[in-house]
Amino acid sequence: MSILIKGGTVLSSTGSVAADVVVDGERVTAVVAPDSWPGNADTVIDATGKYVLPGGIDGHTHMEMPFGGTFSADTFETGTTAAAWGGTTTIVDFAVQAKGTSLLSTLDKWHEKAGGNCAIDYGFHMIVSDVNDGTLKEMDACVDAGVNTFKMFMAYPGVFYSTDGEILLAMQRARANGGTIMMHAENGIAIDQLVAQAIAAGRTDPVQHGLTRPPELEGEATHRAIQLAKVTGAPLYIVHLSAAQALEAVAVARNDGQNVFAETCPQYLFLSIEDLARPDFEGAKFVASPPLREKSHQGALWQGLRTNDLSVVSTDHCPFCFVEQKELGRGDFSKIPNGMPGVEHRMDLIYQGVVGGELTLQRWVEVTSTTPARMFGLYPRKGVIAPGSDADIVVYDPKATQTLSASTHHMNVDYSAYEGLEITGRVDTVLSRGRVVLDRDGWHGAKGHGRFLSRELNQYLN
Amino acid sequence: MSILIKGGTVLSSTGSVAADVVVDGERVTAVVAPDSWPGNADTVIDATGKYVLPGGIDGHTHMEMPFGGTFSADTFETGTTAAAWGGTTTIVDFAVQAKGTSLLSTLDKWHEKAGGNCAIDYGFHMIVSDVNDGTLKEMDACVDAGVNTFKMFMAYPGVFYSTDGEILLAMQRARANGGTIMMHAENGIAIDQLVAQAIAAGRTDPVQHGLTRPPELEGEATHRAIQLAKVTGAPLYIVHLSAAQALEAVAVARNDGQNVFAETCPQYLFLSIEDLARPDFEGAKFVASPPLREKSHQGALWQGLRTNDLSVVSTDHCPFCFVEQKELGRGDFSKIPNGMPGVEHRMDLIYQGVVGGELTLQRWVEVTSTTPARMFGLYPRKGVIAPGSDADIVVYDPKATQTLSASTHHMNVDYSAYEGLEITGRVDTVLSRGRVVLDRDGWHGAKGHGRFLSRELNQYLN
Amino acid sequence: MSILIKGGTVLSSTGSVAADVVVDGERVTAVVAPDSWPGNADTVIDATGKYVLPGGIDGHTHMEMPFGGTFSADTFETGTTAAAWGGTTTIVDFAVQAKGTSLLSTLDKWHEKAGGNCAIDYGFHMIVSDVNDGTLKEMDACVDAGVNTFKMFMAYPGVFYSTDGEILLAMQRARANGGTIMMHAENGIAIDQLVAQAIAAGRTDPVQHGLTRPPELEGEATHRAIQLAKVTGAPLYIVHLSAAQALEAVAVARNDGQNVFAETCPQYLFLSIEDLARPDFEGAKFVASPPLREKSHQGALWQGLRTNDLSVVSTDHCPFCFVEQKELGRGDFSKIPNGMPGVEHRMDLIYQGVVGGELTLQRWVEVTSTTPARMFGLYPRKGVIAPGSDADIVVYDPKATQTLSASTHHMNVDYSAYEGLEITGRVDTVLSRGRVVLDRDGWHGAKGHGRFLSRELNQYLN
Amino acid sequence: MSILIKGGTVLSSTGSVAADVVVDGERVTAVVAPDSWPGNADTVIDATGKYVLPGGIDGHTHMEMPFGGTFSADTFETGTTAAAWGGTTTIVDFAVQAKGTSLLSTLDKWHEKAGGNCAIDYGFHMIVSDVNDGTLKEMDACVDAGVNTFKMFMAYPGVFYSTDGEILLAMQRARANGGTIMMHAENGIAIDQLVAQAIAAGRTDPVQHGLTRPPELEGEATHRAIQLAKVTGAPLYIVHLSAAQALEAVAVARNDGQNVFAETCPQYLFLSIEDLARPDFEGAKFVASPPLREKSHQGALWQGLRTNDLSVVSTDHCPFCFVEQKELGRGDFSKIPNGMPGVEHRMDLIYQGVVGGELTLQRWVEVTSTTPARMFGLYPRKGVIAPGSDADIVVYDPKATQTLSASTHHMNVDYSAYEGLEITGRVDTVLSRGRVVLDRDGWHGAKGHGRFLSRELNQYLN
Ligand SMILES: [Zn+2]
Ligand SMILES: [Zn+2]
Ligand SMILES: [Zn+2]
Ligand SMILES: [Zn+2]
Ligand SMILES: [Zn+2]
Ligand SMILES: [Zn+2]
Ligand SMILES: [Zn+2]
Ligand SMILES: [Zn+2]
Repeated sequence: MSILIKGGTVLSSTGSVAADVVVDGERVTAVVAPDSWPGNADTVIDATGKYVLPGGIDGHTHMEMPFGGTFSADTFETGTTAAAWGGTTTIVDFAVQAKGTSLLSTLDKWHEKAGGNCAIDYGFHMIVSDVNDGTLKEMDACVDAGVNTFKMFMAYPGVFYSTDGEILLAMQRARANGGTIMMHAENGIAIDQLVAQAIAAGRTDPVQHGLTRPPELEGEATHRAIQLAKVTGAPLYIVHLSAAQALEAVAVARNDGQNVFAETCPQYLFLSIEDLARPDFEGAKFVASPPLREKSHQGALWQGLRTNDLSVVSTDHCPFCFVEQKELGRGDFSKIPNGMPGVEHRMDLIYQGVVGGELTLQRWVEVTSTTPARMFGLYPRKGVIAPGSDADIVVYDPKATQTLSASTHHMNVDYSAYEGLEITGRVDTVLSRGRVVLDRDGWHGAKGHGRFLSRELNQYLN
Repeated sequence: MSILIKGGTVLSSTGSVAADVVVDGERVTAVVAPDSWPGNADTVIDATGKYVLPGGIDGHTHMEMPFGGTFSADTFETGTTAAAWGGTTTIVDFAVQAKGTSLLSTLDKWHEKAGGNCAIDYGFHMIVSDVNDGTLKEMDACVDAGVNTFKMFMAYPGVFYSTDGEILLAMQRARANGGTIMMHAENGIAIDQLVAQAIAAGRTDPVQHGLTRPPELEGEATHRAIQLAKVTGAPLYIVHLSAAQALEAVAVARNDGQNVFAETCPQYLFLSIEDLARPDFEGAKFVASPPLREKSHQGALWQGLRTNDLSVVSTDHCPFCFVEQKELGRGDFSKIPNGMPGVEHRMDLIYQGVVGGELTLQRWVEVTSTTPARMFGLYPRKGVIAPGSDADIVVYDPKATQTLSASTHHMNVDYSAYEGLEITGRVDTVLSRGRVVLDRDGWHGAKGHGRFLSRELNQYLN
Repeated sequence: MSILIKGGTVLSSTGSVAADVVVDGERVTAVVAPDSWPGNADTVIDATGKYVLPGGIDGHTHMEMPFGGTFSADTFETGTTAAAWGGTTTIVDFAVQAKGTSLLSTLDKWHEKAGGNCAIDYGFHMIVSDVNDGTLKEMDACVDAGVNTFKMFMAYPGVFYSTDGEILLAMQRARANGGTIMMHAENGIAIDQLVAQAIAAGRTDPVQHGLTRPPELEGEATHRAIQLAKVTGAPLYIVHLSAAQALEAVAVARNDGQNVFAETCPQYLFLSIEDLARPDFEGAKFVASPPLREKSHQGALWQGLRTNDLSVVSTDHCPFCFVEQKELGRGDFSKIPNGMPGVEHRMDLIYQGVVGGELTLQRWVEVTSTTPARMFGLYPRKGVIAPGSDADIVVYDPKATQTLSASTHHMNVDYSAYEGLEITGRVDTVLSRGRVVLDRDGWHGAKGHGRFLSRELNQYLN
Repeated sequence: MSILIKGGTVLSSTGSVAADVVVDGERVTAVVAPDSWPGNADTVIDATGKYVLPGGIDGHTHMEMPFGGTFSADTFETGTTAAAWGGTTTIVDFAVQAKGTSLLSTLDKWHEKAGGNCAIDYGFHMIVSDVNDGTLKEMDACVDAGVNTFKMFMAYPGVFYSTDGEILLAMQRARANGGTIMMHAENGIAIDQLVAQAIAAGRTDPVQHGLTRPPELEGEATHRAIQLAKVTGAPLYIVHLSAAQALEAVAVARNDGQNVFAETCPQYLFLSIEDLARPDFEGAKFVASPPLREKSHQGALWQGLRTNDLSVVSTDHCPFCFVEQKELGRGDFSKIPNGMPGVEHRMDLIYQGVVGGELTLQRWVEVTSTTPARMFGLYPRKGVIAPGSDADIVVYDPKATQTLSASTHHMNVDYSAYEGLEITGRVDTVLSRGRVVLDRDGWHGAKGHGRFLSRELNQYLN
């Protein structure tokens, strides 16, 4: 089964060329000058006037994630399907070690949850909640099993929180086995005091979620993680960076040549604490951690994307329905499940940065696909349209317009964080490993098509 | 006439893939999975075990350049031939406006000098020595003529030097016409006092060239150029950055999101002021401006290449023979012609950074080819192996070894700055616009094959 | 003739004590616990409820200064009298070398102008406009003559401007003879292009004076001066610092331990470019260089005073009458004489910083008196109330209020930059070298009382 | 009883004057010009050729401190006597809250220990080990009781360690009651892992104490404390700063105008990790926390003292005898009692900085006496020779020489950290509140002479 994508402009992280793309089976066979493919093709896709780009890679999702007695609302099936609708053809989801359990059994469990259910390819990061001699050894086994990125938390004491000593131990192990430590960098120990004071004082609205997590405490934790990484020599990747203070800490370390990387998420670029302050408990829709910040941080984040101090845009997709889930926190913001939906809209939203002059076209491709592929050991299988690469390809219509809404989105959640937002650009056609899972006629994908990706090590390390 | 380059590992700025490359006429037609090209090929080049990479782009050369009554020793013919021997398939050379002449007549003169003589493709930057109403207007015409990068000098008063006022005017013009200002950033006004004091005190050896040009005065001028660029909004490209102080100024500006870029050169990465201090006037071989620095700067420059505060490696190739040319400065270091040979060895030398763990393989390609292509408006025609690109291709043998020497190099100069240096890696085969100009049998190129490149604007600007 | 100042709170740069001060002749004899002086006193001054502080030292004034065919409006007599009215008992004025003349003859001329005319003590800085072998040698003689601070200009080409080469030479000399280089740090070469463009475009109002001198060009020149000082080893003192960018450059150098110092002036703390933009040519009253800045710089300057990156507050007092003098620039802002009156109000205005919580009481004394005394080699003769010190003493009423106005001030100029400003605090009594020159009855001073101060070297150098 | 100190050079933090000092009873009555005191004096001290300076204030001592089952070897009697021998006339010692006890009972206990035993005046800081609602409230009472500086520990988990949440709470309280938080800033949680690894690996020598406490972890904790102070608005004082990384964090905060202060200690200026590595367990003599650093840090610390990013030199005097105390850690460096003797040598050692050109004479007085007085709310009672001040006065012979040794020192400890060091300068005579406790004849002081100092708030806050 071969496909010829004709007439489009093929994008990469360095620029664009007019070219046709030949797919044979699951892989790209050739990238050729327009109309110069001498072979046959079973199917021809007309990409005239459109961009042809490597499928998006969302390096930070939480499908069916247990959180405070409930689960994030997207299953691997619904979540990966929504991702594909938005032009994302790979996710890296977080397996979550529960305290007292092993990393490998956790991995087994996540393989069970995801296996046979995903519409697109997927990999795993491992959340390490319980550092001990056994789990430290298991980290090596995880690396061998294609899971070499380990998320730790400086927040959520009693749940995911690791002490600086535990982080140090895990970093030493990562230094030895080639893994990268991913960090949720907020000083949760100090934050929890502020939260308790707010509750005690009767300040219980959703906006308090933001006010009790000041950006200095994200900056502080980021700086601390960087110093621990320096002492141990471990590569470090800061997840969901939201604050200018944290960005500054990352910039200093990167300027010093340390192996420190960071991602931000669309919600920090487009939304703010003003959304958290929406009346009638509407703000609960925007509760995630780190919290949405003052608008002044947005410009710093866009600039960080330009300077490459922010290398990746992921979503931290972790949807909870407003009804029955977010509502758990009425009267006590600290009980609102933390997380926002977003896996479907990342490519479109960051494209608005291109439309608005914040990013170049090539940088759009880089931060949404090429860099995550290199960062998470998937390149050149993913992240580029090149011979031998998986045929994960998006045909994107740069002129089409659309309106984001819960009534039209495909995520399994009852609200949109961007309800009513009119944007330019729209996914036209999506291939996942050579299969057209989506085109203008609609959905042709299927759960179970997606396969687990055993990942290589971070490719940015010298 | 078609060529199939088979069995190699194709490199790009983001990574490597096993692929075959199809060339038809002057251009790349296709990049295909190994053994999957269904068409024919007149010639097959076996690249098994070798790297296949986009031809090098040297963005900073001075062929036949007039300097102090003499000329740099390489003609466009000998210089471009030597470049090709070293895997460089494009140069951007500097047209030099003499005071009192026009930019366009200068450009004509350089077209005359280069036209019909180059073995590889070439473009021009314009050195603006004489800022006045006429030449400011001519800058627009230069942009239209494909020469949109304007070098100015903060050193060499009376020759190339422009005042800060003149620089401001030229920057305003560049801001308006899309051009980029390139800056030789040394405080020549202060330096000339130090030089005069040294001569007056009888300190006349070549090492004085270095001692009278302290790195703080490169840092100062770099900072000054950046501020003038900020005031005017012009893009700025610092040429031949040699000092940690200058790098720091560039890093600050880039971190602030300003359109500031910088290159360094192999001599600053591999040589030092100790070479300038070689006895018996040998140091004269290493006289160039900015001067070779203390060794401690080398580590900073390698790190700058990793952090992308240094985006490009060029050569500043400007050879003067030791006999009769360098010797003009015996007894007075200030009369030594400024410049060193290097166009032939850039790709090999920077590859040593890969061998030594300073840079990744993809970063080697990026700083020597892809980034200069994007910076100088040549991408995707140059700087990448992609359908539609010029077939400027190097087959590189990563395991071969060689010894650098004046006795074997192809530059028209009687010494090598790296005499006797043993290195790993060697150019195997070179294509220039589809023509095999060099292979293991030797030289097949010809003067006149190279064509002038009318360049687009800098592609890094948002 | 002895005086006992009783019952007051004696202030120093480190704090305050309840103490009586005994003056005998021109000097302080003793500082004693309240009511514990066993000796006699001819006169008793009751300072109950008042501050007793060392007389202010204004390290930057221009009396009778020639500028563009006119002279600043205060003579040494009127200017020093006004200073005393405001609690300043020492000025250091600038002798101005005209091109082609010698430093020593300049000094003679200024001794002539000031000698016998001053109401308070005075010293000189030397403006070096003409750097050559002769004047460089004369710098040594100036140091011997008690004038060891040399002001140079990076602005005003053709008038005071020195090239970076000339600055380098003067700095080398200062390094050798112990002098300090004072710098007017604005990139006048670039600025003059912006000025010419404004005039050519018909933008001739006073506000253009500010718009054509962007703060980046003060930051640039400040950084440049610092680098030249670093290369030469000379101490550097930045005069009339007005911009956050310049402050940042100073802060970096000071943090690195370099001998770099800076002053700001009240006008930069209290006025802004909005005043320059006052209609009906009123803005001309506020034309000085560097220009008044956007208000956002004010907070940075107050903070700089707290962090000691700004060590001194001087006035740059250089008054020109609105009528006939400022009016020279109607229709062409570049012809407005540069300068503002201020010598009378410095102590009062900076005291408003104490009232408003910007500075502590001791810091007020430090930046207006103690530090200039130490910086300009006058301590402990001036800048402190201690046995043996000159009896330059101010009794200050911290509760009194007053309204600033040209109708009541004592400067010889027809407008006040602070017309109508109501402030708290007022000078009550002033002693200059033991003589009560001012008390609540009025003026008792006399021209000729003030003597020339031969100054020691900067006391901040290790 | 009155004393006249005649003929000396009286030093202050701003300079020196020739003056006589009159003491009546416990206080300074007058500072007068030489030979101009009209009154009588019971005793005359000849200070000709000597410095007369305010008695030293050591803001960081631990007398009779419980640590790991033993006590620091100096009692309040022996320790304060030794202090006086070294020209220190005030100490501020640390009361140590044991977990589970109250602050006020702790204060009572320390009053009992010190009361009637001190040879010089003393104050207390309070070590807060147990943060809870009760102790937070007690902080206010401590402030009222003249103890407004609260030390907390980011190291020593299980003993003194406070979590970031507890620190936040205490800082909020300090913000409200005017107190200052003092911080032992090392990341003890991470350090303890490194310590455990070293012990487990059989690396048990004293030098391991240094190797397991890398300077990055002091820099990290310092930065963290600063951010917590920023969030809460509390003043912060970093104790015993030893590492360039920590200094950099302090410098950034101070440059931003935050109320952050720091002290260093003589051992960090004069000793290094090489001393910790002395053979035969000799290194144990140098075990303190933070540990002695690589020599390269010393230059940074001297520079910090010049730039005022380090404002104070204290000793962290906490002596343990080599025999029986330090020996507890043979075979396990982590069991070596942490602390070094030093209270006797601070004035002399820092004077070596004057001799060696690191500091000016006035800066010596400032960092050892005037600034601690202002920082700890004792000025002008202490820290200056002024009318009304306590007559705590040192007559110092700048030309005398001495050799430091355990055989001659007065501290109750069996070794000297500076054994055999020959230095210039020696204390000649010491007055404590008007009593000559020491002169060339020897000791005239007595336990019980020293009184408790109820301290005002930090005087550096605006
Ligand atoms: Zn997280
Ligand atoms: Zn997450
Ligand atoms: Zn150049
Ligand atoms: Zn060049
Ligand atoms: Zn000036
Ligand atoms: Zn002036
Ligand atoms: Zn401590
Ligand atoms: Zn301590």
